[in-house]
Amino acid sequence: MKISYLGPRGTFTKMAVDVLFPGEEAYSYATIPQCMDAVVNGEIDYCVVPVENTIEGTVPITMDYLIHQAKLPIVGEVVIPIRQHLLTKGTVELSDVKDVYSHSHAIAQCHHFLHTELPHAVTHAASSTGTAAKMVAAMEDGFAAAIGNELAAKEFGLTILQKDIHDYANNHTRFFVLSSDAGSNPVKRDAGAKMKTSLYVTLPSDYAGALHQVLAAFAWRKINMSKIESRPMKTGLGNYFFIMDVSCEAEDILFQGVRQELEALGCSLTVLGSYPIHQYEKKAGACS
Amino acid sequence: MKISYLGPRGTFTKMAVDVLFPGEEAYSYATIPQCMDAVVNGEIDYCVVPVENTIEGTVPITMDYLIHQAKLPIVGEVVIPIRQHLLTKGTVELSDVKDVYSHSHAIAQCHHFLHTELPHAVTHAASSTGTAAKMVAAMEDGFAAAIGNELAAKEFGLTILQKDIHDYANNHTRFFVLSSDAGSNPVKRDAGAKMKTSLYVTLPSDYAGALHQVLAAFAWRKINMSKIESRPMKTGLGNYFFIMDVSCEAEDILFQGVRQELEALGCSLTVLGSYPIHQYEKKAGACS
Repeated sequence: MKISYLGPRGTFTKMAVDVLFPGEEAYSYATIPQCMDAVVNGEIDYCVVPVENTIEGTVPITMDYLIHQAKLPIVGEVVIPIRQHLLTKGTVELSDVKDVYSHSHAIAQCHHFLHTELPHAVTHAASSTGTAAKMVAAMEDGFAAAIGNELAAKEFGLTILQKDIHDYANNHTRFFVLSSDAGSNPVKRDAGAKMKTSLYVTLPSDYAGALHQVLAAFAWRKINMSKIESRPMKTGLGNYFFIMDVSCEAEDILFQGVRQELEALGCSLTVLGSYPIHQYEKKAGACS
Repeated sequence: MKISYLGPRGTFTKMAVDVLFPGEEAYSYATIPQCMDAVVNGEIDYCVVPVENTIEGTVPITMDYLIHQAKLPIVGEVVIPIRQHLLTKGTVELSDVKDVYSHSHAIAQCHHFLHTELPHAVTHAASSTGTAAKMVAAMEDGFAAAIGNELAAKEFGLTILQKDIHDYANNHTRFFVLSSDAGSNPVKRDAGAKMKTSLYVTLPSDYAGALHQVLAAFAWRKINMSKIESRPMKTGLGNYFFIMDVSCEAEDILFQGVRQELEALGCSLTVLGSYPIHQYEKKAGACS
């Protein structure tokens, strides 16, 4: 089985791959669209892509490329706890760190630590936490640091100078598993866990209360909504479509009722997938 | 009058500053939080920050820092058309460009151009389009390019190798003007334009239909909603609050009705500001 993920080695996405697909062949790609394209082209069986983080919210490139370009069904979800550490080449003092490299989301997640402990360090954007670790490992200068996870420290031979520098303790990221086969079932369903369906809705025109009408179709049927997000239509500011996660399967009779009625009202409703969720809680010491 | 913006010179935010505050003293800061902090500390009168782009959606750091930390009232909005160009040091051939530097949003906005015209070029994340232009201008190598605007080309002496490389023609960014004085009125109200109010709502608990109930309070009063967005509460995946833009003033009797009733239902509703909007449409040749 072949899996694609956002590389290099040492990213949180690679952690998610290791959790879901231990021992399978994992191939790293430079961008999230390339991970998906590899599945579209049939080179790869599944791709694992980050969707949403507790602190930062949605990963826009994932949802936009999935909806507008790749159009692969979602076949599973995994939730991974995110712990960010400050990684350096050797044992330098914290006060000697002059430059900090990481993905812009990771820098944002450690704002308080950087502001109070490293107020004079310059932050630099990298395309992933793994890339940042790789860059710092390759530098002559020992005064640069990367923000990343334990896997990155291990992969690139870096030292963890300071553990758990993220601002909020409850930091998790959701990952989607995408496949070209909607019927494939790679994610183990946790006991008692409900299936989830992701979908998006476009409204017939911009009138007061249109979204209210859409939500009413779900609400009176008591279909719980765990997420709603507006994304730009790319046609003008103020033109949105709505991505929703609801706690039922697309085959449920109540969901089919919602779909038929919203379509009769002039909305379009597209199902992105019905899938099980795997909640990964790290055991003490694991992955450290 | 002193204005803070995300530097260096040559960013789209600087363009917004030039449109709203021509001839005033503009100070560049390295991050969006620092721009806001300068107003909170009283060093600066107004800051101009990007909020939302037609293609990419919301700028999460702006909304999160505004709501959780800076808590400055929004006193105005300006909308600027975004045109991205490929900037190089000299006159190289397009096929010779090996590396492309820009803000990750700008790289995403030019995905199609990069994919088809520069499939072998490596993209690198920079903290802003202005920074990318500054970096490329400082390089020995003439085969690197930046994605940025005309102002950046002018500021850093770069050549526009290819004009308008963004994927979608209708590309605009909204900027907020923030002040520590909610009563200040720096933005000229366009003739006939309505005032807008930004607010956020937290729900009493996660139950099916709670958001539907909130929207109903606006919908039956025919208060039009131009935006709704869920943002993570930072307490766990699936816990959101909702940022909304509505087309009325916070002082309107109908809005006060919404507020009182939602609070009676156990929601909390916080007004971020009521403000006028300035729509800037570039004249042919201006800013070029």
